[in-house]
Amino acid sequence: MQADHKEILDTAHEMADAARQAILPHFRRADLVEDNKLAGGYDPVTLADRAAEQAMREVLARRRPQDAILGEEYGQVAGESGLTWVLDPIDGTRGFVSGTPTWGVLIGLNDGEKILMGMVDQPYTGERFWGGFGAARMTGPLGERELATRATAALEEAVIFTTFPEVGTPREAEAFRTVASRCKLTRYGMDCYAYALIAAGQVDLVIEAGLHPYDIQGPIGVIEAAGGLVTDWRGNPVLGGGQVIAAANPRIHRLALDMLGEYAE
Amino acid sequence: MQADHKEILDTAHEMADAARQAILPHFRRADLVEDNKLAGGYDPVTLADRAAEQAMREVLARRRPQDAILGEEYGQVAGESGLTWVLDPIDGTRGFVSGTPTWGVLIGLNDGEKILMGMVDQPYTGERFWGGFGAARMTGPLGERELATRATAALEEAVIFTTFPEVGTPREAEAFRTVASRCKLTRYGMDCYAYALIAAGQVDLVIEAGLHPYDIQGPIGVIEAAGGLVTDWRGNPVLGGGQVIAAANPRIHRLALDMLGEYAE
Repeated sequence: MQADHKEILDTAHEMADAARQAILPHFRRADLVEDNKLAGGYDPVTLADRAAEQAMREVLARRRPQDAILGEEYGQVAGESGLTWVLDPIDGTRGFVSGTPTWGVLIGLNDGEKILMGMVDQPYTGERFWGGFGAARMTGPLGERELATRATAALEEAVIFTTFPEVGTPREAEAFRTVASRCKLTRYGMDCYAYALIAAGQVDLVIEAGLHPYDIQGPIGVIEAAGGLVTDWRGNPVLGGGQVIAAANPRIHRLALDMLGEYAE
Repeated sequence: MQADHKEILDTAHEMADAARQAILPHFRRADLVEDNKLAGGYDPVTLADRAAEQAMREVLARRRPQDAILGEEYGQVAGESGLTWVLDPIDGTRGFVSGTPTWGVLIGLNDGEKILMGMVDQPYTGERFWGGFGAARMTGPLGERELATRATAALEEAVIFTTFPEVGTPREAEAFRTVASRCKLTRYGMDCYAYALIAAGQVDLVIEAGLHPYDIQGPIGVIEAAGGLVTDWRGNPVLGGGQVIAAANPRIHRLALDMLGEYAE
């Protein structure tokens, strides 16, 4: 691994460590909801969310001041290296406030065109999934191991996830159901953890809509390094978010895409 | 705590330890599905499931030969003490095969009329929730602590879970939606872990249908000891399974039950 690649990965691990430390004291505490982003909606922003993004930005300011930052909580910082760190300190805040270990810290690094490195960290279970620069690995309760997606080649054999049955608009929900009805098993509620499970060879498809760039760039890095792919519903790059399909391999991706295309924005 | 109570709890912990050891080597392995219980359906029974129930039965044969056993995989064993251990070695096999840490080892002990002790164990996250004989506790990544349900007193403030949006029959799904549409947040996909989250003060309601005795007796012990309650949709004891509502406290239970009653079997 090149020296710069090692420095980037070390930085990402230090960021994820700092985020864990900032978040865990707040997990499964009763007094979490700091305010609501959407008046009348339920999109809690927690103290943990903000503290974690600040902690990650402090690591970047010290180690990588030349890079740009795009974060969910504190917006954009310009850089001069051409690289941008894309941060979601707590993806899956609804999971977080209901105590499920399905939320995660998402870290992506892009060069303006593609993802170079991605990381999904679950602080409570102690699991960390990362990929980039030719490797995809995880650490967790069972130790460290390589990540590799699986070779499922038929929808009838596929396990498919989305977080909410509503998915997005009614047509987006219909699109999901159209694919899911062909699959062996449909599961819900896993937030960003479902993307990590594609990389870990447990899940074949995740289909979601309405995502932000910081919701998906970390997962893209992990999944692509493990052998999968992530695109929009037309098969194009999806760094900007929106309608997303993540797949374990090109064949299952193609099969799902053939059904999703007509629902693409 | 009385000597016999301590012996019962020690036995349950030893059983859960043995189940963990039997299961974890099989979790997130590709070659899991041993056979299908329902021809054409998707109800995988894993090697892990069977090995774990055997391991638990061995503990009981050695420590509590006087007690009866009802287990998901190996049926009933008669006893002479009046006590019955009710075992589900892996509740949430669909979660298990898709790699989510939402399945659990369920252990309940009843005296023929009520639950004396219950345990929900999640081997991968290292979390164990148990309750009975006047105490409710958990251990996990953040250490050991007491369990206590929360005091949510309005559906509009409630977090509600079920595993599948389909719940059971179309009418049972309608019943769930009727209650969930009043709640602040609806989440899916957590298998037995959702019951543990009621005991941990994170979730207010879980509504499910079509449960077996071994699916619910362990959770009942944990939730009741933590201050919650578990009944059928008419408010009656539910040791036999079927339509189940678990609630954080009597008030939120009553509010949900008022809407569920007309859907009761």
